[in-house]
Amino acid sequence: MARIVVDAMGSDDFPKPDVEGSVKAAREYGVEIILVGDESKIKPVLDSQNPGRLPIRIVHAPEMLTMEDKGEALTFKARHGQSSMAVGMDLVKKGEADAFVTAGNTGAGMVTALFRLGRIRGVDRPALAPIFPTATGSCVVLDIGVNPDCTPENLIQFAIMGSIYAEKVRGVKNPKVGLISNGEEEGKGNELVRAATPLFKNSKLNYYGNVEGKEVIGGKVDVAVTDGFTGNVMLKTSEAIGKLILDEIKIKIKNGGPLTMLGGLLVKPALTSLKSLLDPSVQGAAVLLGVNGLVLIGHGRSDATAIQSAIRLARNAAESKVLDAMKTAIEESLKK
Amino acid sequence: MARIVVDAMGSDDFPKPDVEGSVKAAREYGVEIILVGDESKIKPVLDSQNPGRLPIRIVHAPEMLTMEDKGEALTFKARHGQSSMAVGMDLVKKGEADAFVTAGNTGAGMVTALFRLGRIRGVDRPALAPIFPTATGSCVVLDIGVNPDCTPENLIQFAIMGSIYAEKVRGVKNPKVGLISNGEEEGKGNELVRAATPLFKNSKLNYYGNVEGKEVIGGKVDVAVTDGFTGNVMLKTSEAIGKLILDEIKIKIKNGGPLTMLGGLLVKPALTSLKSLLDPSVQGAAVLLGVNGLVLIGHGRSDATAIQSAIRLARNAAESKVLDAMKTAIEESLKK
Repeated sequence: MARIVVDAMGSDDFPKPDVEGSVKAAREYGVEIILVGDESKIKPVLDSQNPGRLPIRIVHAPEMLTMEDKGEALTFKARHGQSSMAVGMDLVKKGEADAFVTAGNTGAGMVTALFRLGRIRGVDRPALAPIFPTATGSCVVLDIGVNPDCTPENLIQFAIMGSIYAEKVRGVKNPKVGLISNGEEEGKGNELVRAATPLFKNSKLNYYGNVEGKEVIGGKVDVAVTDGFTGNVMLKTSEAIGKLILDEIKIKIKNGGPLTMLGGLLVKPALTSLKSLLDPSVQGAAVLLGVNGLVLIGHGRSDATAIQSAIRLARNAAESKVLDAMKTAIEESLKK
Repeated sequence: MARIVVDAMGSDDFPKPDVEGSVKAAREYGVEIILVGDESKIKPVLDSQNPGRLPIRIVHAPEMLTMEDKGEALTFKARHGQSSMAVGMDLVKKGEADAFVTAGNTGAGMVTALFRLGRIRGVDRPALAPIFPTATGSCVVLDIGVNPDCTPENLIQFAIMGSIYAEKVRGVKNPKVGLISNGEEEGKGNELVRAATPLFKNSKLNYYGNVEGKEVIGGKVDVAVTDGFTGNVMLKTSEAIGKLILDEIKIKIKNGGPLTMLGGLLVKPALTSLKSLLDPSVQGAAVLLGVNGLVLIGHGRSDATAIQSAIRLARNAAESKVLDAMKTAIEESLKK
């Protein structure tokens, strides 16, 4: 039974969505849950969910990290503090749990993971990898925010990790890996992409070539690699465009006269199901690849369903032994 | 009366959409049109549109540039050739026309413009600036593809040009300018953004600060500046996400049972009007800023309506004297 630590102080509306999602996950997926955070805040919410004999326990953590924690203060707390993130990741480090799930601040999660779990040998920088919806299913995109400036070596490491993740956790055989660029043709790209291309061509990856947004969203590749600046802009713009479209549909239906409004009522369930397609937190949290432990980071605005999805993804990741496979693949790549 | 040269060999389905859109524009906007390209191909299409006494004439150009033209071959043709792009831009250069519109290959248009029109004094690199739809209207985003690698100086020049363009052509008073980044807070960004920030703060621009996709699409700024790599990925991903959503809506409505299908029929006009929101070519072609003449570049898949919109935008740009204002602003910035 996979043992998942959940940061009860993570989401914007903590601890309610975090605890509710955990109880649902324990009930539906047969996972063991360890809730970390302020016990006095967690317990009443947990009790209200009638957890009965579900395998859920609380581990108290006296502090929490917020959006305000940055710079040296964050580094200090990540290294020495007793935040819910730090205490939770320590449980993974000690082998008392298989994965850590949080809907807290991404930067705080990344810095805490670096101090508490450390990096996989051979990985210079960890990368955050969410799953983008595509026309044919989904695509693992990384990095989407941890490393604004990258080297070609960073990108090839991201590619190896993303490829193993797609294979082990997403069940994709021999995943196709694309390098995000401003044009499909070889030779297109910024300096980074052009410098990385030979590394990709000489790797053991199933390298597809350059991809534009069209190919990523169109489902041409299973893994799309980019620096954390471009990836972050891509993710945030995609989310914003999705929201804009759904908002505009609502406005147009509302202003379209009685027949259009009737039509709107009839298609509402179809449109609602689109929302989950567009929300990466519902597709499953982003995984922080490259640290020596499974860490999954969801949106701050995660609801109980999003937390539950993240826990399912964490369980899948834990059961797939993706971390071991990733370590082996990175070791292999170092031998060349 | 604004005199607009239209590349009749530009769009994927040339010369039909190009000529039809030109006739419509001449009829509706009172502009003079000069169609450049293969006269034997243009004339039958033009005649079929019953142009009557509309001020439309053909200037023959024996060659055309395609997606295949690149590298040295493209440079040679741009410098010495008689393509529709070269002949058309020469008319602008000689003062016989006020603006050039093409739905042809962006790279070919940029290289031809550099050779035939040259750069504005003080501008190191031209930038391509489309208009993104936003929650409150629109935002000029640049560069979206001409310069994959940029310097901080490039970005500030883009910002000055984009700001003048938003003011003169889009009618925005004192346009708010944002620097696209992976986080709103100052200090967030890649090396380029962090190096450019002091230049923006010390400029005469109405500088808003860093913006994410959320702020751009949410309409917080009127001009959003980025390097051509990030901008291109952003544009292509936005287009792809828009298409994915509309396709998914169709699928969900089709598979949703008879009531949902009925609803789909009723909301169809509302959804169709969304398409134009999502298509930057309908919002108006992208303008190539920084060359010494007005050049507008539309999508290869432009239809007659998109060509017509591009011509309207070209007319607005010509009448606004945006080029002169831009030259003055760049000169001013050099004095500091």
